[in-house]
Amino acid sequence: MSTEKIVLGDNQFGKAENHLVRVTKDGDLHTIEDLTVVSQLHGDFASAYYDGNNEHVVPTDTQKNTVFAFAKDGVGSPEEFLLRLGQHYVDDFEWVTGGRWGARQVSWDRIPVAGAGHDHSFYRGGSGGETRTAIVKIDGDAKYVISGLQELSVLKTTQSGFEGFPVDKYTTLPETTDRILATSVTARWLFNTTDVDFNASYDSVKQILLETFTNHYSRALQETQYLMGKAVLEAHPEIDEIKFSMPNLHHFALDLSPYGLENDNEVFWAAHSPYGLIEGTLRRESLGDTDKIWKGVPAFV
Amino acid sequence: MSTEKIVLGDNQFGKAENHLVRVTKDGDLHTIEDLTVVSQLHGDFASAYYDGNNEHVVPTDTQKNTVFAFAKDGVGSPEEFLLRLGQHYVDDFEWVTGGRWGARQVSWDRIPVAGAGHDHSFYRGGSGGETRTAIVKIDGDAKYVISGLQELSVLKTTQSGFEGFPVDKYTTLPETTDRILATSVTARWLFNTTDVDFNASYDSVKQILLETFTNHYSRALQETQYLMGKAVLEAHPEIDEIKFSMPNLHHFALDLSPYGLENDNEVFWAAHSPYGLIEGTLRRESLGDTDKIWKGVPAFV
Amino acid sequence: MSTEKIVLGDNQFGKAENHLVRVTKDGDLHTIEDLTVVSQLHGDFASAYYDGNNEHVVPTDTQKNTVFAFAKDGVGSPEEFLLRLGQHYVDDFEWVTGGRWGARQVSWDRIPVAGAGHDHSFYRGGSGGETRTAIVKIDGDAKYVISGLQELSVLKTTQSGFEGFPVDKYTTLPETTDRILATSVTARWLFNTTDVDFNASYDSVKQILLETFTNHYSRALQETQYLMGKAVLEAHPEIDEIKFSMPNLHHFALDLSPYGLENDNEVFWAAHSPYGLIEGTLRRESLGDTDKIWKGVPAFV
Amino acid sequence: MSTEKIVLGDNQFGKAENHLVRVTKDGDLHTIEDLTVVSQLHGDFASAYYDGNNEHVVPTDTQKNTVFAFAKDGVGSPEEFLLRLGQHYVDDFEWVTGGRWGARQVSWDRIPVAGAGHDHSFYRGGSGGETRTAIVKIDGDAKYVISGLQELSVLKTTQSGFEGFPVDKYTTLPETTDRILATSVTARWLFNTTDVDFNASYDSVKQILLETFTNHYSRALQETQYLMGKAVLEAHPEIDEIKFSMPNLHHFALDLSPYGLENDNEVFWAAHSPYGLIEGTLRRESLGDTDKIWKGVPAFV
Repeated sequence: MSTEKIVLGDNQFGKAENHLVRVTKDGDLHTIEDLTVVSQLHGDFASAYYDGNNEHVVPTDTQKNTVFAFAKDGVGSPEEFLLRLGQHYVDDFEWVTGGRWGARQVSWDRIPVAGAGHDHSFYRGGSGGETRTAIVKIDGDAKYVISGLQELSVLKTTQSGFEGFPVDKYTTLPETTDRILATSVTARWLFNTTDVDFNASYDSVKQILLETFTNHYSRALQETQYLMGKAVLEAHPEIDEIKFSMPNLHHFALDLSPYGLENDNEVFWAAHSPYGLIEGTLRRESLGDTDKIWKGVPAFV
Repeated sequence: MSTEKIVLGDNQFGKAENHLVRVTKDGDLHTIEDLTVVSQLHGDFASAYYDGNNEHVVPTDTQKNTVFAFAKDGVGSPEEFLLRLGQHYVDDFEWVTGGRWGARQVSWDRIPVAGAGHDHSFYRGGSGGETRTAIVKIDGDAKYVISGLQELSVLKTTQSGFEGFPVDKYTTLPETTDRILATSVTARWLFNTTDVDFNASYDSVKQILLETFTNHYSRALQETQYLMGKAVLEAHPEIDEIKFSMPNLHHFALDLSPYGLENDNEVFWAAHSPYGLIEGTLRRESLGDTDKIWKGVPAFV
Repeated sequence: MSTEKIVLGDNQFGKAENHLVRVTKDGDLHTIEDLTVVSQLHGDFASAYYDGNNEHVVPTDTQKNTVFAFAKDGVGSPEEFLLRLGQHYVDDFEWVTGGRWGARQVSWDRIPVAGAGHDHSFYRGGSGGETRTAIVKIDGDAKYVISGLQELSVLKTTQSGFEGFPVDKYTTLPETTDRILATSVTARWLFNTTDVDFNASYDSVKQILLETFTNHYSRALQETQYLMGKAVLEAHPEIDEIKFSMPNLHHFALDLSPYGLENDNEVFWAAHSPYGLIEGTLRRESLGDTDKIWKGVPAFV
Repeated sequence: MSTEKIVLGDNQFGKAENHLVRVTKDGDLHTIEDLTVVSQLHGDFASAYYDGNNEHVVPTDTQKNTVFAFAKDGVGSPEEFLLRLGQHYVDDFEWVTGGRWGARQVSWDRIPVAGAGHDHSFYRGGSGGETRTAIVKIDGDAKYVISGLQELSVLKTTQSGFEGFPVDKYTTLPETTDRILATSVTARWLFNTTDVDFNASYDSVKQILLETFTNHYSRALQETQYLMGKAVLEAHPEIDEIKFSMPNLHHFALDLSPYGLENDNEVFWAAHSPYGLIEGTLRRESLGDTDKIWKGVPAFV
């Protein structure tokens, strides 16, 4: 039995999984934005913990209502929407010192009819299968924007190998100079400004990630991660740091010789688990410590 | 305590979730097919049940091996691959009288680099987000092919209503002439022949489903289902019957008036549950009873 | 282009995923029932399909309301609740000829405090991890009840083997007389009466399934399935037929010899996919064809 | 285009989802431990990133093999197993300076047969439905152990309210003094020593969390979180800090008055989304900054 006083440490609260669909109408031409929003407040909520006193507890129900009410004025991009949402709380509630607001956005494409996109009918879009993510963190006067994507599925059927690794008593893996490299990219990148065309920036980063994945012989997923991050940071001065989490989704070329068949890297078993997991950060050399910004953000390392 | 004899009824066994990736190489130009296959045998397996005698039990491990070995000769389409796979069992094992073989196929598109698709790098494809499915059923000398798709996500922002429904004491729903109609189409269609270009047929059916979804004012999801099924069957004489399962994914236009705002069908809450569920079959008028074919196929009604 | 008339075949509609929690209070002693209900109507809905005429379309929203309104009078068991719910539709709507109502029920146990169950605080219950299921099907004057369970996780560390199977060119599996047998039992059983204490019956069937799993050397999962079904039907005259779907969840004893270690069936890799899938039906010998009853019920073969 | 040098920041790599089942045999009495392990190494891996040089990249395949090889010597508790696993890497590879090793453990109970637990047959255990978690982090000479649980489902049918909260223009929530409080507890707690009987400690913490949930009128989930954390820390001097993530799983008492029925907190709709999300940390007052320990651990705030 310990008698030392127990105190409140880091805490936050809010509403998760607010699934918002915003329709914007320009005559008969409709556009949709589809975001699932989480709102979490930081500030002085100690009396709720210690005394069950809720006078500072902005109800999570109110936070939900606010998401939908703010959507009346449009979304624009998830980053802009969350910046507006977050500013409201630090402006209107003196005990709220900041918070974290996040969104997952899925894309919808216009259904092609006779070669043209329909004006009000859509189907799930997004070659690559990824979900776009955005996080806005406010900490007093500081505002941070972290954009990202989840589960961008990419695969190359050659131009990947793995050699020269250390061997110990538990090593049975053979070296290879030709394998399938498949991964599902999750990435988050930190901006050094909020003055960004976030939609254009997102499209550009995604395309850079895709192209860089294709354009080299990969000696390890680590090297590929470095090249992808480097390419993004070189092309985007408004981004200071990018974090990757990439499973190595193993595709095993099965031994068909028991059945009298050769397998010249044609027939693969796509194993689901276990899988390799490679996580890394690429950043500008002069960038200072950003741990405080990433703290509590679902990141990687 | 009952003493009546207990006997074996319908049964089948095999291997599920065989995830096959087949790479076909034409010089530097690679193509991939990504299928998850299930193999299930029908026949005389009674002694395994009654006596633990496995002399007829083709191991599920062997069924797995066979999937990968057969892939050496190529896939072509999931339907052709499953037909070849199934024929092997009825040809080679006299006590196997048939079976059911199924596949889910996901598509990969070439990553665009400088405007052209890359020769060996791919990302998850398929606008609409659906998974293609195929089932081959063999019953003695009869062979049936059922193609389909799962979770084709479509949404229209207007041109949908729901009026004129019966009202009882539990009815609180208001009528509407303008709502979002959103659904995730699962459909399966039965061919009357195996002499089909299955890949071309699939692309055509998908496009017809998408276009028909756009081109009418929907008075009920039932009507939309009818029009979609009718369009497919009229355009594809090789298809006799199509079954749909469509959730009605409710998008509620929230009341923003408590906050002094109007909501002219602009701001929606996409609720996840509960959801409407509309399931129907469209078929040629002269078609006989097909219950035996659909029996045990994960279908709908 | 085909010009044959396209007609409506089997169809149903309703509301899925109605998650109901019913609290019953006996003074300070509270009891909870937690059911997720699906309601689907059968009958004459052709005009909705052909003409967008909704005069027969009992709104899925009304079906949802009815689930919650009926819960006011208590649940008792999922089977009784669904029987009452279904009867309402065939009684009150002349064009409704039947339907299918289903429920998944999860159990909650009282939190033990100082050795006794708390009167109003609960935690998720149910050793075995299974979900209880119930389906009521009404077809004109006929009523059918199918109870079941999903994903009852069981594992035995020995007393299981697999030998004597046929060998062909694709067979590489060795025989074994000692392996882990692990499965996640999904079972559905058909009653021949509605005059049943369904809660007591469920508990008894579950216990029989568990005990039978333990009490024999399993020569194949098929034999185990037979013994489990036979034991249920012999003990429960009110049940006529039981269907099983059991994955064979492979646990591979890894070869540790490369690291100089023996593995005497101690260290296993629990592979998730692919997996064996064994599906079978056990039934009374005199039972007639029940295909019409099972049609459209998510069953197995 | 930015020309500043891009450098490697935090990174780690390893193998995830190693599903290990360990059987321990004491004559006919068998015991099982079921862990899914992730292994991630920290150290000097820069040359793999910059140069594709893998001489420091202990293959993820080797890390997988090591998990299973180490299990030959037994598990004991996930914490002890991970401590042993982690020590191996810092001892045997000079460029490995630490890492993070994690496990999820599910419990299996003996199947009761004639009132007694069976010696080698098991079913999924664990009233509460939770998964036990463990994380070991090694950073140079420092070792940290964080134990936890995920998704412990608890619900109380009364003795919960929410009043006195701030009201702004977006607030529509009414106050209540009687509601269902339901949550799925995820908690992680940090030890100040590795000299712990981790299995006994886990059981005790779980029971304290459960009992504390029952024994007070909850004025807010924050208050309940405080009381739960305080009780754990007071009873367990070996624990310094505990973090909670608790969704507020809303159960809405539906208005049945349109159907002429009262609802005296008897009939609830269990909504799945959106949900409240309350995350907090309780810690000893004298405890210093632990951010470095929690960094990269999937925690909460």
